[in-house]
Amino acid sequence: MIAWGGVGLALGAATAGGTAAALAGDGTEPAAGAAGEAVPFHGAHQAGIATAVQDRLHFAAFDVTTRDRAALARLLREWSAAAALMTQGRPVGGGAFGGLAEAPPDDTGEAIGLKPSRLTLTLGFGPSLFAEGRFGLERRRPEALVDLPKFPGDNLDPARSGGDLCVQACADDPQVAVHAIRNLARIGFGKVSVRWSQLGFGKTSSTTPEAQTPRNLFGFKDGTHNIAGTDDAALTKHVWVPSSDGPDWMVGGSYLVARRIRMHIETWDRTSLQEQEDVFGRDKGEGAPVGKAKEHDAPFLQAMLPTAHVRLAHPDSNGGARMLRRGYSFTDGTDGLGRLDAGLFFLAYQRDVRDAFIPVQRRLARQDALNEYIQHVGSAVFAIPPGLRDERDWWGRELFS
Amino acid sequence: MIAWGGVGLALGAATAGGTAAALAGDGTEPAAGAAGEAVPFHGAHQAGIATAVQDRLHFAAFDVTTRDRAALARLLREWSAAAALMTQGRPVGGGAFGGLAEAPPDDTGEAIGLKPSRLTLTLGFGPSLFAEGRFGLERRRPEALVDLPKFPGDNLDPARSGGDLCVQACADDPQVAVHAIRNLARIGFGKVSVRWSQLGFGKTSSTTPEAQTPRNLFGFKDGTHNIAGTDDAALTKHVWVPSSDGPDWMVGGSYLVARRIRMHIETWDRTSLQEQEDVFGRDKGEGAPVGKAKEHDAPFLQAMLPTAHVRLAHPDSNGGARMLRRGYSFTDGTDGLGRLDAGLFFLAYQRDVRDAFIPVQRRLARQDALNEYIQHVGSAVFAIPPGLRDERDWWGRELFS
Repeated sequence: MIAWGGVGLALGAATAGGTAAALAGDGTEPAAGAAGEAVPFHGAHQAGIATAVQDRLHFAAFDVTTRDRAALARLLREWSAAAALMTQGRPVGGGAFGGLAEAPPDDTGEAIGLKPSRLTLTLGFGPSLFAEGRFGLERRRPEALVDLPKFPGDNLDPARSGGDLCVQACADDPQVAVHAIRNLARIGFGKVSVRWSQLGFGKTSSTTPEAQTPRNLFGFKDGTHNIAGTDDAALTKHVWVPSSDGPDWMVGGSYLVARRIRMHIETWDRTSLQEQEDVFGRDKGEGAPVGKAKEHDAPFLQAMLPTAHVRLAHPDSNGGARMLRRGYSFTDGTDGLGRLDAGLFFLAYQRDVRDAFIPVQRRLARQDALNEYIQHVGSAVFAIPPGLRDERDWWGRELFS
Repeated sequence: MIAWGGVGLALGAATAGGTAAALAGDGTEPAAGAAGEAVPFHGAHQAGIATAVQDRLHFAAFDVTTRDRAALARLLREWSAAAALMTQGRPVGGGAFGGLAEAPPDDTGEAIGLKPSRLTLTLGFGPSLFAEGRFGLERRRPEALVDLPKFPGDNLDPARSGGDLCVQACADDPQVAVHAIRNLARIGFGKVSVRWSQLGFGKTSSTTPEAQTPRNLFGFKDGTHNIAGTDDAALTKHVWVPSSDGPDWMVGGSYLVARRIRMHIETWDRTSLQEQEDVFGRDKGEGAPVGKAKEHDAPFLQAMLPTAHVRLAHPDSNGGARMLRRGYSFTDGTDGLGRLDAGLFFLAYQRDVRDAFIPVQRRLARQDALNEYIQHVGSAVFAIPPGLRDERDWWGRELFS
């Protein structure tokens, strides 16, 4: 096992460098770091929310298959330990592979030699976990963790919706994100199973004010006025759960809405430039709001059509409601008709979905001109607990205690 | 349309830089370039074969739906012009979007502002294109473009196999690769439709001798002894079609075998390290052949089990047969049983499949210990014509003349 020992040492060295280069802190980063760095796992908030958006995503929703509460709590403890290692570029088990040739390796190995790649792993609890007769958590369910209502136009596939648990893996290298989800699923074998998962290949939002706003698959910049990961005032107001909201185990956490939004690419691509720009309320090249010259110019909403996406989604049309969006484009091959199965995997973090996603989406679902070109086909909501304080802390410690 | 004009100019400037930085040449590069560079589109061979392997893949197989030979030839001419632009980081249409607000934009726009990202577009012709009664090409079909035989263990899905045409898009940014395939599909609307497509997120081979061999989803280094893109002697002997082979329109071309290989990740992950290493004939950490210390040490095949993958695939076990491999790992979510739909999208270029893929795969399909953990679920073969000489040349010019 000399070779494995050597690998462990090499990884240790690489990790030390990565960790030293990374910023210590509370899970937020002021700006996008170098692709290879490690993002601190411990902190007041979970990393992967205010963290500068990484290039790639592997998101997984899990069904809990065990009925044993203690086994589930043990699993969450194991997951926390594995996540603490993997986010720092270390293999599951910490690199001590030695000696057990007759056992499967602790880590599946395909990320060995790759950099930490700013991997973040963000865990959430779905409403179904709190159902009666399951784990005795029904009285711990946060009031804000509501089931999302059915919105006009929704065409949700149950096989791509819901989930007892979720893990959002973001990294600048997709192999690192896929490796992390796979190893968590493996650790959970017999206790959880993947209900659905989604790969995202292109970020569609930026949480760093100075970065260029990425384009979605319609070719438009969207999310210009996203909440920046450095904007503590906005994070406090719109993203993190305050102690006044409660429950205690959610303070410093957030709520995540995930929506798989299929984009009818071929229809859109046959639409005139003028129509496309009217639908969004921006010009396509620069991304400037109607009548303005630059992307970041303040929009004059009344100059846009009443059905324009930017106008309807703007905080001024929604009583100031804002979310931190960190969605990704996806392309999952083609459907049976030769059309791209592509779109936006929308991810938005917020302090309370009842004040943010739900009213905003109600308005969009009724009026948005974009609805002609998109369809929501998957949906889930999760309570995202706060960050882990240190190596003894674990995901769900307060919830399960 | 001032904004679009501005974008065009900005892209022009970025492209000039990228092109200057890129190596002029015949579609080969001596080493991996910076991620943003442009790879020359014109040359003796198509780019995307000997080119240093890019990080990401979008591969599409098309059915030709038109029955009009002239329309198909026109489409291939349009595709060639679009590919010449997109590979250099320029939008379809060349950036002249101006003035036509009432028409759809020439380019779908989601790659605007992104770097060329070493995009290569490699076109191939499938056996079905040469069928009688279609385009009058039955007598132009290369002898070497045989239908692949059924191999033991094959479980091929027709919906993921075959195709009249293929385009391999490789780039260091997946959005650039997806954009290219989407825009070619859009140009082909009404004449071709996507039969199947495959995204690949992690390269599994290297064509640069100094680069580290990537790991596959079993955690192993494979393809250590791949043909290097700089090894002209090996390329000449094993990859490019010589004039002595013919037909004329294929000289300087190659043959591509594409296989979607599902990997039974969960079964593998429960297998002992010793068994895993025996299956491959390498150690997992370093990648060294059995009994050797380093990955690149010459393997002693007789020290391996007779069923070891490395032993069976080695040129010495196959009369010297070699292929240039540039496969990618894929993860397409989960199947209905909660298992990862993941594996290797195998791509191999060779001078003649009858001397390379077919005999090697016959041996592997019968004997390879790895077969317990994998299954071939998609298959296609394509004739890859030589490169385009200049801007007046187009894919298929000789074939259709």
